Amino acid sequence: MSEETVNMEGAVCAAPLPHNEQIVMGHGAGGRMTHQLIRKAFLPAFDNSALNAGDDAAVLQPRPGLQLSISTDAHVVWPLFFPGGDIGTLAVNGTVNDLAMGGAQPLFLSAAFIIEEGLPMETLRRVVESLRAAAEEAGVAVVTGDTKVVERGKGDGLFINTSGIGLVPAGLELSADRARPGDRILLSGSLGDHGIAILAQREGLEFESEIESDSAPLHTLVQAMLAIGGTIRCMRDPTRGGLSSALNEIAAQSRVGMMIEEEKIRVHEEVRGACELLGLDPLYVANEGKLVAIVAPEGAEKILDAMRKHPLGRDAQIIGEVTELNSGLVAMRTALGTTRIVDMLAGDQLPRIC
Amino acid sequence: MSEETVNMEGAVCAAPLPHNEQIVMGHGAGGRMTHQLIRKAFLPAFDNSALNAGDDAAVLQPRPGLQLSISTDAHVVWPLFFPGGDIGTLAVNGTVNDLAMGGAQPLFLSAAFIIEEGLPMETLRRVVESLRAAAEEAGVAVVTGDTKVVERGKGDGLFINTSGIGLVPAGLELSADRARPGDRILLSGSLGDHGIAILAQREGLEFESEIESDSAPLHTLVQAMLAIGGTIRCMRDPTRGGLSSALNEIAAQSRVGMMIEEEKIRVHEEVRGACELLGLDPLYVANEGKLVAIVAPEGAEKILDAMRKHPLGRDAQIIGEVTELNSGLVAMRTALGTTRIVDMLAGDQLPRIC
Repeated sequence: MSEETVNMEGAVCAAPLPHNEQIVMGHGAGGRMTHQLIRKAFLPAFDNSALNAGDDAAVLQPRPGLQLSISTDAHVVWPLFFPGGDIGTLAVNGTVNDLAMGGAQPLFLSAAFIIEEGLPMETLRRVVESLRAAAEEAGVAVVTGDTKVVERGKGDGLFINTSGIGLVPAGLELSADRARPGDRILLSGSLGDHGIAILAQREGLEFESEIESDSAPLHTLVQAMLAIGGTIRCMRDPTRGGLSSALNEIAAQSRVGMMIEEEKIRVHEEVRGACELLGLDPLYVANEGKLVAIVAPEGAEKILDAMRKHPLGRDAQIIGEVTELNSGLVAMRTALGTTRIVDMLAGDQLPRIC
Repeated sequence: MSEETVNMEGAVCAAPLPHNEQIVMGHGAGGRMTHQLIRKAFLPAFDNSALNAGDDAAVLQPRPGLQLSISTDAHVVWPLFFPGGDIGTLAVNGTVNDLAMGGAQPLFLSAAFIIEEGLPMETLRRVVESLRAAAEEAGVAVVTGDTKVVERGKGDGLFINTSGIGLVPAGLELSADRARPGDRILLSGSLGDHGIAILAQREGLEFESEIESDSAPLHTLVQAMLAIGGTIRCMRDPTRGGLSSALNEIAAQSRVGMMIEEEKIRVHEEVRGACELLGLDPLYVANEGKLVAIVAPEGAEKILDAMRKHPLGRDAQIIGEVTELNSGLVAMRTALGTTRIVDMLAGDQLPRIC
């Protein structure tokens, strides 16, 4: 083991040899360090166009006329239970949403459990029941699974991996490299509920009214948006790393700039208060039931209307535009009228949020 | 947390309330306790025919003429590196083999990494390189992934989940409920190499010649067997729980008995010696590059020949027959001429073997 100094903010002190580096929490936070790890350690090894597309799910054509979408998520959220959900609901909705962001109809899930020795059977039963109910709500079948047990102290209660399979309608192509200057940026609702619900539970914070995770399956909202016509370039669910990471990923892959309006971005009062108290920026906090869509300007209002008619898109807003200027950068006009760069989260903000 | 006494052999002392039970290592060992957990905690929740079939992969028909096979495995093997492979090779071959046992052509893999903070980057790089090489050898593409990091002490270096997608040839149906009296039981090679290689590495045991894991992708062997004609009822790769669990599963699901011949079952000399030393039975030790097939008697010899022509089936043998007697039981004629019941592994023999 290396003796090299690392700090928990995610900054690895300069090492003469890259093999002296260690994994730090920031590598799992969904921001710049995660992207660097993926680019350095994973993409070169598994080089293929589906993976390189950098979307949340891979779209594949194993034979003509068949577009399969495949997604996977390891869920390590802590604590296992929190207001608005638990690791079981997240394990379904997280994977369903990754499929939905590519326009796929989610069909099947796998579920693999890594359980720490000593987990109360009752805890497992509660999680399985949540997972069952969430799968039923989302209309997906859990068709295969796996169970592993690790010794006490070698895990943390329960980790759940789900993989999802969906079918993508013929001709539909959504990808993060398709944004064009002039496109509108649509956000389906308020930011930060999930991350702050977890953090409040973890830290024992109490608010006037309880903050609940927004965990929800977004595929019927997506289907309503696709049904209305208009051109959707791409969608993302702003989970780990928050809205800032989602928009920065799209801006980088499409080589465009973005300008968003702070006043159009909804944040619940309690969430805003908690963020101020804790020194967090809602743009970087995880959501589990929201989507951001980049759409061509012509159909944007119609798509916005369709979103607002869906229970999960009631508070949808056009929050900004794709720009030709400042390629790869996301900027925000603040409520005070100034402009600031909304960078990708560097290292670690909230560990084990999903 | 419950105060109830549990012991590591997997026997949970009788509890008045089932919600007082805890997970013990035996729940992950692939034997009777794992099956009970699956039957009690998972199957009732996710009730569907693909899952209930109880095979290592689910076969699904999302639309006419399309048979998809889906499989998932969480890999928690410890140590990460061992003679003949590492967690990266296992993560590919384990999932490829689960697909292959249903006759599917493996096409795509997902890979999700749960990394413990502090893992040397060099360790991750070595594992990713093994995973890459194994995927290349098996001819599958890693098309999507996920990376999570947990705090030091909340994981154990690295866990890897892989899910696999394959296509099943039209008309092919292999399932554990199809064995019939008179069918032959074919085993592709020697038993116990993987489990003993891991255990030797873990315990620092040294033998005259190093025992290597048999980790290998079996789908080309399966394709050679399918190509030859003859009726294959079902196949299993005897991993956790060993040959005994694989055969007991099939016997129970098909409601048949089985009689196998100890003299026909190959065990390498070093592996046999290690098993005697450690008090282990090779029938219960995990393999990662072997398959057992139940085939109709007419074509059995032809299939055996096809197996022996393949590098991974050189040592294949017909090890026994399916019987009408003793439904649900597997019996073995020993080298001494006596007969004994080969029961399913009850609890825990070798934890974290895959």
